[in-house]
Amino acid sequence: MEPSEQNQWKKAAAEAAANLVEDGMVIGLGTGSTAAFFIAALGHRLAEDGLRITGIPTSEQTAALAHNSRLPLTTFAEHAQIDLTVDGADEVEFGTLSLIKGHGGALLREKIVAAASKRMIVIADETKVVSKLGSLVSVPVEVVRFGWQATGRRLTEIGGNPSLRLGPDRKPYVTDGGNYIMDCAFGPIGNPKDVAHRLDHIVGAVEHGLFLGYAAEAIVGGRDGVRTFRREPA
Amino acid sequence: MEPSEQNQWKKAAAEAAANLVEDGMVIGLGTGSTAAFFIAALGHRLAEDGLRITGIPTSEQTAALAHNSRLPLTTFAEHAQIDLTVDGADEVEFGTLSLIKGHGGALLREKIVAAASKRMIVIADETKVVSKLGSLVSVPVEVVRFGWQATGRRLTEIGGNPSLRLGPDRKPYVTDGGNYIMDCAFGPIGNPKDVAHRLDHIVGAVEHGLFLGYAAEAIVGGRDGVRTFRREPA
Repeated sequence: MEPSEQNQWKKAAAEAAANLVEDGMVIGLGTGSTAAFFIAALGHRLAEDGLRITGIPTSEQTAALAHNSRLPLTTFAEHAQIDLTVDGADEVEFGTLSLIKGHGGALLREKIVAAASKRMIVIADETKVVSKLGSLVSVPVEVVRFGWQATGRRLTEIGGNPSLRLGPDRKPYVTDGGNYIMDCAFGPIGNPKDVAHRLDHIVGAVEHGLFLGYAAEAIVGGRDGVRTFRREPA
Repeated sequence: MEPSEQNQWKKAAAEAAANLVEDGMVIGLGTGSTAAFFIAALGHRLAEDGLRITGIPTSEQTAALAHNSRLPLTTFAEHAQIDLTVDGADEVEFGTLSLIKGHGGALLREKIVAAASKRMIVIADETKVVSKLGSLVSVPVEVVRFGWQATGRRLTEIGGNPSLRLGPDRKPYVTDGGNYIMDCAFGPIGNPKDVAHRLDHIVGAVEHGLFLGYAAEAIVGGRDGVRTFRREPA
């Protein structure tokens, strides 16, 4: 698989998702390379099909892309509920459609938008699909800067093996919300609900990258074209 | 009861707590009027008894008071664990020593410090002691600014009856961490653990003012002098 091939798979998944958007919808716009293809595809539908939508972006980066694609943006002040959110993921668990997100650094806003959405579709290329969450990537945890060292101890106690994410300048990476990210290498996770529960209760951890029960559908691009999966009942 | 009388009760409780501090301790310094009396009393012990301690402040305001009282300050970078935290509360539940905190606006840092402490003593005047949490005050919830309206809907769904806290300028109050506060009027709370659990799971809620299982002792000043309570086994 070449990088350009992977990009084609992402693009195909993103375009399939864009075709599901209906007139008048409020759309949650994810962050990352696959979400960027979705924003571009949605821009084409607005220009060519006369589709009217408004979007709520999950990052400054996504807001800029949406602006370039001439997508009208709105805020939670105007719309407390979102009709559909389309976002990428770092891992998609086969069957449950549980996700790991946050390697793009926008997990807090992504989760707020997903939680405020009637429906979420995750779009990905097939390299992101795993049989068990944590197989490929660590779980990002957004932590308050104040006392992050103490919060890190707590993450260690629950088996998170945390490391502070650094930026290209080797300084701690700072999120849009002004927090740090600790990447927690749990390894393959047998019981994601249990881990999410422990993370939810850690003081100083603002939010974490386990998205359980959010995505109802996954659109996955790959070698054999685009496939759609629905979440299997637990 | 006159305000000055209430201040005498706070001061008496704070001084009793300051007498429990031992040489070499790392002390978590709370925020608010009662905690301010503790910082002043601790300053006297440093000046007069030659006590040596270092403090970790829970707010900018407390850092300034500590500076005035010549308390040496430290950070989590130097000490990931705190020996003793002394802090006030808006309500102290009789028996369980469960607390409501955060009306001073510093609950996030206060909880991070309390969670990193081997021992926490709450100091209060007797008007703060209640038989059931939520009898006198609402539960402050610190929420991410992004999507606070959607988070507010979620708080409403769990019976929180939230209102956005405003500052003296009638604009939303912003915490040291850059978040908003929603004050949730639950009324008297039958099962604080259940409410805390629901609040812990709300996306966009960074932290809340229910402090359960933190304070092992309460030092309470009042009409009949200073009394010390220990947490009763659950």
